[in-house]
Amino acid sequence: MAHALRLARRGLGNVWPNPAVGCVIVQDGRVVGRGWTQPGGRPHAERVALDRAGALARGATAYVTLEPCAHHGQTPPCAEGLVAAGIVRVVSAMTDPDPRVAGRGHRILREAGVDVTEGIREPEAREVQAGFLSRVERGRPFVTLKLATSFDGRIATAGGESRWITGPAARLHVHALRMAHDAVMVGGNTAHADRPSLNVRGMATPRQPVRVVLSTRPLPDLPPEGPMHGPLWRIDAPPEEALAQLADRGITRVFCEGGGVLAASLLQGGLVDQIVGYTAGVTLGGDGLPAVGPMRLVRLADAPRFALAETRRIGPDLFHRWRRVALA
Amino acid sequence: MAHALRLARRGLGNVWPNPAVGCVIVQDGRVVGRGWTQPGGRPHAERVALDRAGALARGATAYVTLEPCAHHGQTPPCAEGLVAAGIVRVVSAMTDPDPRVAGRGHRILREAGVDVTEGIREPEAREVQAGFLSRVERGRPFVTLKLATSFDGRIATAGGESRWITGPAARLHVHALRMAHDAVMVGGNTAHADRPSLNVRGMATPRQPVRVVLSTRPLPDLPPEGPMHGPLWRIDAPPEEALAQLADRGITRVFCEGGGVLAASLLQGGLVDQIVGYTAGVTLGGDGLPAVGPMRLVRLADAPRFALAETRRIGPDLFHRWRRVALA
Repeated sequence: MAHALRLARRGLGNVWPNPAVGCVIVQDGRVVGRGWTQPGGRPHAERVALDRAGALARGATAYVTLEPCAHHGQTPPCAEGLVAAGIVRVVSAMTDPDPRVAGRGHRILREAGVDVTEGIREPEAREVQAGFLSRVERGRPFVTLKLATSFDGRIATAGGESRWITGPAARLHVHALRMAHDAVMVGGNTAHADRPSLNVRGMATPRQPVRVVLSTRPLPDLPPEGPMHGPLWRIDAPPEEALAQLADRGITRVFCEGGGVLAASLLQGGLVDQIVGYTAGVTLGGDGLPAVGPMRLVRLADAPRFALAETRRIGPDLFHRWRRVALA
Repeated sequence: MAHALRLARRGLGNVWPNPAVGCVIVQDGRVVGRGWTQPGGRPHAERVALDRAGALARGATAYVTLEPCAHHGQTPPCAEGLVAAGIVRVVSAMTDPDPRVAGRGHRILREAGVDVTEGIREPEAREVQAGFLSRVERGRPFVTLKLATSFDGRIATAGGESRWITGPAARLHVHALRMAHDAVMVGGNTAHADRPSLNVRGMATPRQPVRVVLSTRPLPDLPPEGPMHGPLWRIDAPPEEALAQLADRGITRVFCEGGGVLAASLLQGGLVDQIVGYTAGVTLGGDGLPAVGPMRLVRLADAPRFALAETRRIGPDLFHRWRRVALA
């Protein structure tokens, strides 16, 4: 299952609106097929792994990071595919909350005489599926907020200079994170002031992220959609409504890169699930531009709290990732 | 020598104006004496280790983290003490830059027929001696700036609430760092607004740090010097001159705990050697109180740069320590 989860992660950011799933088929202790959800969301992981395994799938065990699908879409359901291929045992990490599946995949398998074990490494599987689960269960995507700042939380000097506070290794890491999200989002001020490219550079990606600008104003002149740039969507709505619209359009994971006004309103609205920080060893002073705009907070207890999930050095900078803590 | 360096560190913060030295005496591969500079600066490490070793010092090797002293002060010089005890070999990490020593300790030993090896683990020894070296070589103490902030660099909400942003483990860690510094320094605004205790609590310390307030105003009502509080010094001078005064009075290591105006002026003056950050997983917004005051920086290249030396989790908070990078 650990192997299947690693495969599943490869799909993050380029399989929306589908979930990123991994599948490993094992015959007599030997891996005979591996698969993960392909760019655009199909073929599904199980189909890819079964095709690799061929005749060796007969009598084998399939490890899947999400319950196999049960609905006839553009392809026959994976649960039926596993049965037809002669799989005798399925080990599944979690039930698919999609109302079109919701236990019916596991039921099809059991009714066909397949031995099914559920809930193996479920916490890790839920973490990989955080975006898909958020979209299905909360009607909005999973939101990561990026803050790349000076030691004292600034993104530009008092004189307005901002390039570069963090080093090239941290900036490349940002591109890897963009690649693992379905959409990259900025506010209108940032779109106009920086004309950001909001694409993945420096590494091959099967699918450029959707560029989302939350703005009441018309968009500035940004590059058109193409091989190097994803679709460009302007949304003129408050953050919560904008995120609901993105979920409706299939987006499961959003990477927000500022500016300060949008960051503050997402934080105030309790809409940030994860913060990734890149802290540079430089101080710019209290008259520098803050990464997060005014939040009008009075009580410390009302401030959104995050738990440290990961920290390490990236080049000369400090990388730290935090997950939202539910309010008591 | 690694052992001697660990012993040396025990003296940091409570041996000023003397250096914190460690000494290990080894006879036939067995440690027969250990010592470190005692609170207040004497007895010296070598004297303590020789007294422990007694007759076993005859024919033994002494590992010392700093060249043994050569001058007659309140006690006879350690170089002579080592010779008198019958030490036949001295392994020393570095030469003492104090003009009263400056190689004369090593010379006394060699002239008495002792085999002397110098420069062993010198970089680590210089790190332990950073405060003493700064005072002797630059005429000012080594300065550590502490910034305990929200994720976005704030030390209070827009409403002024500041207790507590970081957790109890981080606050206890601050007390351990105060203990390892000779003096704890704040600006006048912080002294008046917070009436900070600036002492070491929650752990036993042989010597409370000197409390330094940089202020043009008379001091507010702070606790008098006593078992729980170090001496209280008000200095009415710009930061650079104040630090020179502290060095004149014997202070080698200063721990600055704010506020924002003092932090900014130390940073602008290039007077900060080390920053320790405690970052909490909470965002307070751009209208919260910044940890560093205005620096009037225009060019990013003019901002003081620091290199990441250490990072780890302390309770729920992120601890990170940075060392000053010399300007190119």
